[in-house]
Formats: sequence, structure tokens, C-alpha cells
Amino acid sequence: MSDVRVHNLSISLDGFATGAGQAPDAPFGHAGERLHEWMFATRFGHELGGGRGGSGGGDNAFAAMHNHGIGAEIMGAGKFGPPGWQDDLHYKGPWGANPPFHTPVFVLTHRPRPSIEMEGGTTFHFLDASPAEALKRAREAAGGLDVRLGGGPSVVRDFLTEGLVDHMHLVQVPIVLGRGVRLWDGLESLERSYDIEAVSTPSGVTHLTFTAKNR
Amino acid sequence: MSDVRVHNLSISLDGFATGAGQAPDAPFGHAGERLHEWMFATRFGHELGGGRGGSGGGDNAFAAMHNHGIGAEIMGAGKFGPPGWQDDLHYKGPWGANPPFHTPVFVLTHRPRPSIEMEGGTTFHFLDASPAEALKRAREAAGGLDVRLGGGPSVVRDFLTEGLVDHMHLVQVPIVLGRGVRLWDGLESLERSYDIEAVSTPSGVTHLTFTAKNR
Repeated sequence: MSDVRVHNLSISLDGFATGAGQAPDAPFGHAGERLHEWMFATRFGHELGGGRGGSGGGDNAFAAMHNHGIGAEIMGAGKFGPPGWQDDLHYKGPWGANPPFHTPVFVLTHRPRPSIEMEGGTTFHFLDASPAEALKRAREAAGGLDVRLGGGPSVVRDFLTEGLVDHMHLVQVPIVLGRGVRLWDGLESLERSYDIEAVSTPSGVTHLTFTAKNR
Repeated sequence: MSDVRVHNLSISLDGFATGAGQAPDAPFGHAGERLHEWMFATRFGHELGGGRGGSGGGDNAFAAMHNHGIGAEIMGAGKFGPPGWQDDLHYKGPWGANPPFHTPVFVLTHRPRPSIEMEGGTTFHFLDASPAEALKRAREAAGGLDVRLGGGPSVVRDFLTEGLVDHMHLVQVPIVLGRGVRLWDGLESLERSYDIEAVSTPSGVTHLTFTAKNR
């Protein structure tokens, strides 16, 4: 059985994984890029932008896990586009012609549409499905590889609540956002189901990894 | 001018510094002792209990800062006793005859009472005062040494909001409490006023230190 993995999910000290006021030009709301500066500074981040350079230390080692052995992604509607994208029948996500997934991607939405094949191996499929149903579809598409749960925080929370997450990598950034979408709501005693490690790095962030005890 | 310092303030991943349901036999509510196990395991923690032993690593180094150069403490009513302690005119706190402060301690309460002199140098004074007023009194009593802000979280939040905290040491424990008293509420953008460092230790906790930029 392949694993379900969360990677590079960045949260503020007060537990917000995205800020308030999400919009087309502000996918993380008032948080701006502050939750992800640690990642943009790494080799992995530079390569995402199509360039070279960046740090090769601890932050990069964690960041680069994002792609290893992944055969499909599941994401929420809020990651695929800003509020209202479902009204635009030609919308194909914010990533351009060659999105950085290179696998099948299952977008959870209550208003599904036909699949979209992009360049570079990414195909977007749209599902109105429960976490377990979506995971079944994604596992079939992943061909024995792992399934990445791409966020946002509400989707990760839903899968955590149902005990469907095997590995989770959070990155705690030393900022206090004050408002936005919280990761932790409704997850009391989550630590009982996971072995948790914390690794702080010189950039100031702390990587928290959760490994399911019942794998 | 002496500094105002917070030490060993332990919070859950979701930012609660105490659990729900505080009572005489449960000063941290449903959190129990889980927020402070890291500290009890240190030399500092063993000495608090009057014994010897305990770990001498990173957790102990941070924990032991609690007493260095402190001349007075300010604490909230909720740290001095369980809800309703003000109705018991003979109540002297939960620490026994020789409390672990050994300095003047200023207890913030809307129902002040005469001061109480304990063994070992601790004297409890009771103040119905604003943070700034309480700090003025504590500084006078501290004789040039620093003032420790002893918690709980609501009092620390009040002093942070007024920009009165010079150093803060938080300890993030890898548990999700789900309910209780949050530290972070109302502190959006706190990071702008502080240099923040994170140090994770083998026990699994992460020490976060905040040093005021305007000192």
C-alpha cells in the first residue's frame, strides 16, 4: 500500500497555513510570500522557478522530499485557483502551461469539470468526492507510488481527521499571522497517532515531521 | 533599566499555554503535566522538586535561565491559585511554605489583600493595576535586577500588547491540546518587534526565544 504524504506545508507560529483575504494576486492572502521565503531560498525553490542556485542545507533537504516517489497529488479547490475559478470554464490553474506536478492531480471541488491534460505530464482531474474516495482514485492513478496531499490546510485537516495521512512535513515560520485558515482546529490529541520530530534550521524555521504509528 | 523576561512558557503546537478546565488539582486543566514534562526531566526541574539528577543538555540550559538575575516576579491571578482563591482569606498559593521564587512577587488581581511574607525570601504582594503600573512597582522592588513575567498566558499577552517584554522564552511541545488559553490571540505581526531564534532539542521540544529589537 502506498503512503499518503504532506510536504512543505508552512504555518505561522499561531498555526495559520494561509492568511486572510485570498485573491488572484494574493493566493495566501495577507501572508503574502512570508510563509514560503524559506523554500524560495533553497536549491529546490530555485529549480521550481526554472533557475539555479539556492541553499543546499537542511531546508533544501526537507523541501526536496516533495517530489520523491510521488505518483499523484490530491489538492483542494482553494489551491487550484482563487474563489470563483469554477465560473471560468477555460481556467487551468495558476501555474502556466507546464505545472510543477508532472503526475495526475485530483482537484476536490463540488463543481467538477472534464479533465485537463497539461504539458510535462500533469493532468488535472476534478472530483466531488470524500477523502477516502478521492484517495482510492489517486492511488489507482499513482501506479504503486505515493500520493501527495497538496493542501490547502482544510483538505489536510479533513484527511488527518479520517486517519488517512501517513507522513506530514510542516514548516513553522516565526511570524504571527493573526488571521487566516488554521491547520490545527479539531485535531486535539493528534500526537497520539504520530511520532513527531522537530528540527530547527539556521534560517529560523522549524521542520516538524509526523510519521503515523499505525503504518 | 532592567529587562522584563518571560521564561519556560510552554505551549502546544496549536498555541495553548494551558488546557481547559483548570481546577485545584489540575492547574493546567486537561493538559495535565504534558506541557512541562520536558522541564521536569532536567536538572533544573529536579532541583525545583528538591532532588538531584536530571538532564544537563539544551533543555536544562534554557530552563535554568529562569532564575538568573531576577529581582521580582509579576504573575496573574490564575497562576497564584485556582478560580475562587480570592474567597479564602488564608490562601497562600499552591507552593507550600517556601515558594520557588525567593524574591518579591506581585500578583495581579482585582481583589487585592495584604502582603504575605513566606519562607525563603518570597513575599507576595497583591495589586489591582495596569501592566505598566505593576511593572513600575516590580522594578522598584527588584533593586536593579530584571523582572520576570511569570504568566499565565493572558498576562503575558497583555504585556506583549503594550510592548513591555524584552525577552521571551517559549517552549513548543509537540502535542495538540485543542482547547484552553491561547497565547497568540491579538498578537499579529509580533515578529516585527523581535529577533526570533528557534532551537529544537532531542527531547522533541523547540525553544523559541524573542529578543526585543528596541531594547
